[in-house]
Amino acid sequence: MSDAAETPPTSPSPPPSERVRVRRGAARAVYGPDVVRAILDAGTVAHVGVTGPDGPVVLPMAYGRSDDELYLHGAVANALLGAAGDAQVCVTVTLLDGLVVARSAFHCSMNYRCVVVLGRGRLVQDDDERLEALRLVTDHVAGVWSTRRPPSPSELRRTTVLAVDLAESSAKVRSGDPVDDDADLEGPWWAGVVPLSEVWGEPVPAGDLAAGHAVPGAVARLSR
Amino acid sequence: MSDAAETPPTSPSPPPSERVRVRRGAARAVYGPDVVRAILDAGTVAHVGVTGPDGPVVLPMAYGRSDDELYLHGAVANALLGAAGDAQVCVTVTLLDGLVVARSAFHCSMNYRCVVVLGRGRLVQDDDERLEALRLVTDHVAGVWSTRRPPSPSELRRTTVLAVDLAESSAKVRSGDPVDDDADLEGPWWAGVVPLSEVWGEPVPAGDLAAGHAVPGAVARLSR
Repeated sequence: MSDAAETPPTSPSPPPSERVRVRRGAARAVYGPDVVRAILDAGTVAHVGVTGPDGPVVLPMAYGRSDDELYLHGAVANALLGAAGDAQVCVTVTLLDGLVVARSAFHCSMNYRCVVVLGRGRLVQDDDERLEALRLVTDHVAGVWSTRRPPSPSELRRTTVLAVDLAESSAKVRSGDPVDDDADLEGPWWAGVVPLSEVWGEPVPAGDLAAGHAVPGAVARLSR
Repeated sequence: MSDAAETPPTSPSPPPSERVRVRRGAARAVYGPDVVRAILDAGTVAHVGVTGPDGPVVLPMAYGRSDDELYLHGAVANALLGAAGDAQVCVTVTLLDGLVVARSAFHCSMNYRCVVVLGRGRLVQDDDERLEALRLVTDHVAGVWSTRRPPSPSELRRTTVLAVDLAESSAKVRSGDPVDDDADLEGPWWAGVVPLSEVWGEPVPAGDLAAGHAVPGAVARLSR
């Protein structure tokens, strides 16, 4: 996404480490933990990158967070999570807010909020923490954990839980109008933004659901 | 996203290479090029992974595609694109279609369509191909290229264009109802899917746009 148009910084916080410093479009960088957490809470899935034997691998994954850590989960045989244990990972969460139609193709862009978390994956072993992590992941989009059948011991054994510290995270945000060259402002081109949002539809009961089960409140609230 | 519930394969095509074979939830793998291209065309941004000096880095980027290649672009100083030239990259495009609320927390999941492209990045040098690639990227979400001021020679010089062959790509798709354990079917839990979609709002003219400029058709069509 083009960084040609710079906007003033929205946060005075310094980056938490040099390698997580935003390089391109640095004026759009936001390093405050509150901003990072707000974007993580608003996002739906993360794109998780590890270095595999043949190069980088990036897969979408559900996630949750505590105050200090981001949690991922998957099957025990999940190759990506296996590779992420005690290895460097990059977890990226992006929300798209709009298409920025500038007068010039060069300045066309997207409005977005993005968080990048760099860290060493930690395979969670403690059963209490594993259960809490699964709750956080399950409750991330809608707080349904307490209305579901909880995991059995066998299901827990078949699940890998990975934690990534949020200490090295940064956010980058673009919002607002296109930023065109002055020479283009009087030209014949329309310019503006087309807003984009994720919209939840009405819950659809499963085909095998018997009559008489009410939609949980947390599910119903998604589409309001 | 949980792969605990397997569904029958939707395509008989073999994976184009062993390393791009879907491992977890293999029954959800779809390797046909038509499926891959349809998902790429429906997606909005890609998450691009490279291996940097300190580990994997994943960033969101606009993209476009020709019949055989996926194109990315950015500023010449873009570190990720620089690292991707003649190096292995992973380009992942995900569309989220819904939240799958199963009776058990273990079987909760998302409905999604995802493409993973593995390949060696090729920095595009030829000016005609660079211009065509920028057109494909600019036209990917909405076909606005022909209604914008085209790039100047200076803007072209300041832009890196990267191509990744689509030969090693695979798709993974989950759709439909939760798949619960038989023992849970008669339990007290609601189950179903909450559909999710990206919705474009009405175009908002830039604050500095003079009166009398019509919204381009390709922009107006987004929100219909």
